[in-house]
Amino acid sequence: MSAVLEICRRAQEAFLGLSVLGAEVRDAALSAMAEAIERDAAEILEANREDSAEAERAVRAGGMTQSLFKRLILDEAKVFSMAENVRAVRRQTDPIGRADYACRLDEGLVLRRVTCPLGVIAAIFEARPDAVPQIASLCLKSGNAVILKGGREALRTNRVTARLLARAAESSGIPTGALQILEDRDEVKELLGLDGLVDLIIPRGSNAFVRYIRENTRTPVLGHADGICHLYVDRAVDRSAGCKSAVAILLDAKTNYPAACNTVETLLVHEAAAADFLPEAVRALREAGVEVRGCGKTRAVVQGVTPVSEEDWDAEYLDLILSIRVVSDLAEAVRHINRHGSRHTDAILTEEPAAAEAFLSGVDAASVLWNASTRFADGYRYGLGAEVGISTEKLHARGPVGLEGLVTYKYQVAGAGHRAGDYMGEDARPFLHEPLPADIDLFSHEPRSPR
Amino acid sequence: MSAVLEICRRAQEAFLGLSVLGAEVRDAALSAMAEAIERDAAEILEANREDSAEAERAVRAGGMTQSLFKRLILDEAKVFSMAENVRAVRRQTDPIGRADYACRLDEGLVLRRVTCPLGVIAAIFEARPDAVPQIASLCLKSGNAVILKGGREALRTNRVTARLLARAAESSGIPTGALQILEDRDEVKELLGLDGLVDLIIPRGSNAFVRYIRENTRTPVLGHADGICHLYVDRAVDRSAGCKSAVAILLDAKTNYPAACNTVETLLVHEAAAADFLPEAVRALREAGVEVRGCGKTRAVVQGVTPVSEEDWDAEYLDLILSIRVVSDLAEAVRHINRHGSRHTDAILTEEPAAAEAFLSGVDAASVLWNASTRFADGYRYGLGAEVGISTEKLHARGPVGLEGLVTYKYQVAGAGHRAGDYMGEDARPFLHEPLPADIDLFSHEPRSPR
Repeated sequence: MSAVLEICRRAQEAFLGLSVLGAEVRDAALSAMAEAIERDAAEILEANREDSAEAERAVRAGGMTQSLFKRLILDEAKVFSMAENVRAVRRQTDPIGRADYACRLDEGLVLRRVTCPLGVIAAIFEARPDAVPQIASLCLKSGNAVILKGGREALRTNRVTARLLARAAESSGIPTGALQILEDRDEVKELLGLDGLVDLIIPRGSNAFVRYIRENTRTPVLGHADGICHLYVDRAVDRSAGCKSAVAILLDAKTNYPAACNTVETLLVHEAAAADFLPEAVRALREAGVEVRGCGKTRAVVQGVTPVSEEDWDAEYLDLILSIRVVSDLAEAVRHINRHGSRHTDAILTEEPAAAEAFLSGVDAASVLWNASTRFADGYRYGLGAEVGISTEKLHARGPVGLEGLVTYKYQVAGAGHRAGDYMGEDARPFLHEPLPADIDLFSHEPRSPR
Repeated sequence: MSAVLEICRRAQEAFLGLSVLGAEVRDAALSAMAEAIERDAAEILEANREDSAEAERAVRAGGMTQSLFKRLILDEAKVFSMAENVRAVRRQTDPIGRADYACRLDEGLVLRRVTCPLGVIAAIFEARPDAVPQIASLCLKSGNAVILKGGREALRTNRVTARLLARAAESSGIPTGALQILEDRDEVKELLGLDGLVDLIIPRGSNAFVRYIRENTRTPVLGHADGICHLYVDRAVDRSAGCKSAVAILLDAKTNYPAACNTVETLLVHEAAAADFLPEAVRALREAGVEVRGCGKTRAVVQGVTPVSEEDWDAEYLDLILSIRVVSDLAEAVRHINRHGSRHTDAILTEEPAAAEAFLSGVDAASVLWNASTRFADGYRYGLGAEVGISTEKLHARGPVGLEGLVTYKYQVAGAGHRAGDYMGEDARPFLHEPLPADIDLFSHEPRSPR
């Protein structure tokens, strides 16, 4: 058995033990993990210094970007905030054992649907050593076993952190194997090829990276590749003070963090608002260093705008570039977004509730916003607590994904000797299908009369 | 553009129109579809007679099984029940526009999460002409566009039925293209290869068929291949009247419909119950024509049982065959099921609630039952109304899947000029994250004070 296969089997075995533990055991493990980070902060920092020294040489040799380098480096404050983040996950409501449907199928035959963990989750991410405690705590809190694979740059930091987290979890009663790491890129390749051992893969990194994962596995993948987000300025946009509010939202959505997936890449403007809004908007964008590319109608309103190409509508710049298109109405804006967007996040600016409603229901995206910046599309900002990422998938968890995305559900039925054959054919016994409170206790809800 | 690509694009276009229609339009369409079936029953029956005549020749030539042939044939009663089934779907609660989470992020900035249709659904199934109205009504009720591909045997029946359903839907305001059919096997192959045009594929048919679909597409697939279900007879099984109740459940679970996916394939028996239960059980099984294969301990208790092989534990017989294993305790039973089961449906027979609870939480399956037959695992029996199938996937819909499995959700945010940058860095504005009733009206809930 290969090392990866062995790791997966151990994780599966650990999951089965983990899935029947109560919340108190899982929460105690997260507390112990937070304490372990604080207690062994020096050890983590020492490993990080070694990683950083090597990375510094790589930066000097041109083999690593400054931004990747920056994300790698830890200091004491960052390590302590890693511990705090684990505690924040622990404080979240237990996502396991929540029932949302119950039904009395017949006398003595009761059904309920209840959340349970997914199984084995593999998280593959780049740099950022703080991803290790974050993802580990989200997975263990939700009763899942986790296999972590971080970037090569953070090898020593991740190894030390994962080891002390696993030790802390085990000392609290979490089965051995519930938190493991891979260190080798070839191991990832092997993991992607395994069928039915891992229940979910969560890749975090560049578009190309997420796309590579998706294209090389049959295991379900939770994540997003492209973030081609739109801002549509409606004819009924607030034009007071030179469209001040709309321009401010646009600047926030484009320049607050250009490399983020929820940054706006294309601006759509109703033709009736173009003359008022566009000159102000382009002036502000240029002041902020944004390169502006526009359609013919845009260039008729504002001087010196680069012509936009068809490819621009499908581009995720992740940079200070914005393409602009003037549309003849809201329907054309919605059509453009549904054709060129990535179903991630799109916003409308309008003073008309009916226009907002048409946009919010007509745009096929995980997040749709009215008079607010696309940058709000984020698990923390949405009040979901810690997030494992943003999904542009439509099945299962969509948009910002918190603990709820790491669980599934099962149907539990309690009977008293019931046979399905009695409910079929002539003289079939009818079903009652009587709705019950979802939180019914299946194991003591009533004297079950044997039939 | 190929014919299939054109069909998919038309479906996408139709979906965008369909997704903003109110429930009253979708329900009116379903009413019109039911009426059309009744009105044009003669036309459907005429097409079915032609299909049946051809099929009869195929049966005689050995090219078609009797059971497939039987499922193909319609009579007037069956056609009228097809119409009734469409009406039953129409009567279900609208799955669209249901909000389950709302939160005031800050003054004037409100979030809610609301269900919406998935998009374009492709359903690929064998024989059974009644699948056409059933799947079409489920998809349109949930605001999805649907592409149907039935078996070659029912080509004429499906063509006539789909055409009159589409006409009825369109006459009620459903966009053209929301209900289309494919007729050619090569078209299915092309459809599987398309990326990003179809949101969900629902295959219904044999294991091999579902597995073929899964292995040949990157589009999400909802369905199940194997149904390797278990019945575990605990040490605390009710032994009154010669284990009468347990034997009756076993017979129901094995012989009520051997070809069904929720039929039991392996019986596990606690060693303390083996001497009382197994002789009675095997006698009854043999009377019912079931071939019994057992482990060494089984054969020590009952004479003349065929030795079981390792492969039997992973076999889905779909036939009157049962493998039996005696286990030393409940934990061993759970381990066996989690290793060899297909996560479909498993049951325990016991008088001890604690044993039932351990089994129902420890077994990793979509349906887990206590003192009831595995055959209850079914959307109609569970009170979900019509079902599109049973899923052994863990992501999204699991177990019997009704209308709820055909929707996703989106996050809708209403603000008043809010910028994310104001909530970052020094002097960051804090979020309120105040829970709100989920059914809040985003478009008129309060005077929104511009900031």
